[in-house]
Amino acid sequence: MKSTGSPLILITNDDGIDAKGLASLVAVAKGFGEVVVIAPDKPLSGMGHAISIHDPLRLFESKLHAPALAYACSGTPVDCVKLGIYEVLKRKPDLILSGVNHGENSSTNVLYSGTMSAAIEGAMEGIPSIGFSLSNFAPDADFSTTQYYIDQILRLFFKNGLPANCCLNVNIPDLPLAAIKGIKIAKQAHAYWADRFEKRQDQYGRTYFWLSGEFADLDQRPDTDLHALKEGYVSVVPTHFDLTAYAHIQTLKSWENETKFQ
Amino acid sequence: MKSTGSPLILITNDDGIDAKGLASLVAVAKGFGEVVVIAPDKPLSGMGHAISIHDPLRLFESKLHAPALAYACSGTPVDCVKLGIYEVLKRKPDLILSGVNHGENSSTNVLYSGTMSAAIEGAMEGIPSIGFSLSNFAPDADFSTTQYYIDQILRLFFKNGLPANCCLNVNIPDLPLAAIKGIKIAKQAHAYWADRFEKRQDQYGRTYFWLSGEFADLDQRPDTDLHALKEGYVSVVPTHFDLTAYAHIQTLKSWENETKFQ
Repeated sequence: MKSTGSPLILITNDDGIDAKGLASLVAVAKGFGEVVVIAPDKPLSGMGHAISIHDPLRLFESKLHAPALAYACSGTPVDCVKLGIYEVLKRKPDLILSGVNHGENSSTNVLYSGTMSAAIEGAMEGIPSIGFSLSNFAPDADFSTTQYYIDQILRLFFKNGLPANCCLNVNIPDLPLAAIKGIKIAKQAHAYWADRFEKRQDQYGRTYFWLSGEFADLDQRPDTDLHALKEGYVSVVPTHFDLTAYAHIQTLKSWENETKFQ
Repeated sequence: MKSTGSPLILITNDDGIDAKGLASLVAVAKGFGEVVVIAPDKPLSGMGHAISIHDPLRLFESKLHAPALAYACSGTPVDCVKLGIYEVLKRKPDLILSGVNHGENSSTNVLYSGTMSAAIEGAMEGIPSIGFSLSNFAPDADFSTTQYYIDQILRLFFKNGLPANCCLNVNIPDLPLAAIKGIKIAKQAHAYWADRFEKRQDQYGRTYFWLSGEFADLDQRPDTDLHALKEGYVSVVPTHFDLTAYAHIQTLKSWENETKFQ
């Protein structure tokens, strides 16, 4: 895609090309540049950083976001980013946006989230990327507060830029605009899903399991995303893709000598 | 599952329950405790941290790793870990092992890897976890060198333990045992896939795309996993699940005030 002078913005999500959250994001982003949408052709929540290795990918042009160019993709959110950069645009966009996710992607949910994995993939490619999520799973959730904050954050991005290889995980509480106190730059809270499985019998008497569970916040720090959201702030976590536990490198260093001479 | 006194070891992978790499790992792990295998019923490379939200999960008992208890699971590697802990074992195992992956999971491949995502899920649950990968994609790859190092690393684990919420990403070069110089505690290299897509026509004349690409190492540091592997070492990266880019929190802090009063 040739440059038109205005910023080129690639948009994806994990709830599928016809999700209200995606339309809400596209509507705001259009005010900041040329938008191209490449989004999954079906809901793909919980896809994480999955990519399609064993299957071919399809792209179908869609009028859903006209006049913006849009494609429904048979693959995952990360596939959408890869196809977007290397096949559709044939160049790196100036910005990748993902969402708005129907449901919060705070804390360790960043790892399960297709929405955030698309943004992380953008960061890996060296492209400034932002994922947006609303704390409401409903298909018809009200995105008006979210749209206000998308606009604010895009203004800040175009004014200040983002650090290299860093994307943003933005979560918006499901509150009226007047009830939100502003944005907080936060840390990913340490939490996990204490899972339960619904164990049921199908119509043939065979057992199946369906994932359920409760989220357990283990983090007492005052500056986490979960804490910010609970206090009524929009949480913004600068997010990268380096999973090295640097704090433990020195501890483990002794292992090198314990094996070397055996 | 009741405690027998010996360590309970849950094993999974992403190449599927009948992969040679999994059998190679089970064979070594059996010497260290009671092994239970729960692995995908099909190859699921590139699944990342995907979980099944929209689909029910099935477990089928398998004799493949007898006398060890084993189940083929219809879900992802992370589903296998969750089902293992909460449904099959009904308690946290003492150790989770994942692999041996047919193919390297060094550098940023940790994000795409189902093998490593299973280990990261274990770390999120507070269970010591280790993922093993061999730098050879072949289904019939030679895992004998790998088995030597699995044995070494399990000995070190049972002697020293692991830091809390930290798993290990272990990659073994595809070399004869004598050619390997030992293990190196390393950092995740900064690299990415410069993707290409094979663009073809199916028998109906419709276009499809198939992911391909080349891996681009952008990291000049001498202590990365990619560097260690190139030098003939087994790389061991202490890996966590906190994606916060702490270095950039201060930089972004000014955004809080720039929105608050608008």
